[in-house]
Amino acid sequence: MRIAIQDTYPEDFAHCYGCGYRNPKGHRFKTYYDEASGETVTRYAPRPEHTAVPGFVYGGLIASLIDCHSSGSAAIFKLLSEGKTPGEAVTPRYVTARLELDYRKPTPLGPELWVRGRAVEVGERKVIVESRLLVGGVETVRGRAVLVLLPETMARGASR
Amino acid sequence: MRIAIQDTYPEDFAHCYGCGYRNPKGHRFKTYYDEASGETVTRYAPRPEHTAVPGFVYGGLIASLIDCHSSGSAAIFKLLSEGKTPGEAVTPRYVTARLELDYRKPTPLGPELWVRGRAVEVGERKVIVESRLLVGGVETVRGRAVLVLLPETMARGASR
Repeated sequence: MRIAIQDTYPEDFAHCYGCGYRNPKGHRFKTYYDEASGETVTRYAPRPEHTAVPGFVYGGLIASLIDCHSSGSAAIFKLLSEGKTPGEAVTPRYVTARLELDYRKPTPLGPELWVRGRAVEVGERKVIVESRLLVGGVETVRGRAVLVLLPETMARGASR
Repeated sequence: MRIAIQDTYPEDFAHCYGCGYRNPKGHRFKTYYDEASGETVTRYAPRPEHTAVPGFVYGGLIASLIDCHSSGSAAIFKLLSEGKTPGEAVTPRYVTARLELDYRKPTPLGPELWVRGRAVEVGERKVIVESRLLVGGVETVRGRAVLVLLPETMARGASR
């Protein structure tokens, strides 16, 4: 998968502070499907100010990264479950209904962060994604997210 | 309580991107104890770029807000449990071990966000805080955080 799933989001739903290509001030997280492992991957190099206590990555940034990684992963896994190719078919837009984070070890600030995700459930409207945050190959945080298709009530603000 | 708990953190642990007074680029969340309700309160006005889809607040920002609110609340509730006055005694520094977020309704972008927290457990090293995010008086998100006293392994980066 050569294009990030977020770069295939419909224009009206590409303003996300975490991952929208239409948000010039945001993080611009990018999630890809890795055919070799069957996992989704999001990589991000935190900036020096993304500190918790000195030397470690801010947990809120990690939550943001896993949040957008999970909604992007939901779209990828949904498309794959329908036999479609992410990046070629129309991309469904998922939002987070529940997010769980286990900060198992402190995450050192400096090296690039890798998040790897897999689907544990792909339903009609709901997808559950489990993720691992890795830094230098060491797992420091685990995430579990319940994603649902963008509800009608959230689509009303688009196109303005 | 007239001073925010984050403004009483030891200098070496006041660099947090979410709430540190020594981080000039961060959000600077401030948490207070509200004697009338017995709850902790953190208020924040999101910026226009803190978007999920147009018209709604980015979930990662909400996770960040509830994260720092919870660690600040843990310090407040721990001090109160020891009969101390937050802002006058030395403030313990908590970090997040687990964070759970239930995004029950979309959170409209515009009005100030209020987070209200209460302790459901105050132990020797661990505190559990439950929080509600309110916007215009309507609850949109619930959070539950497990906080632990800053471990030795995270204190090594300080003072550099």
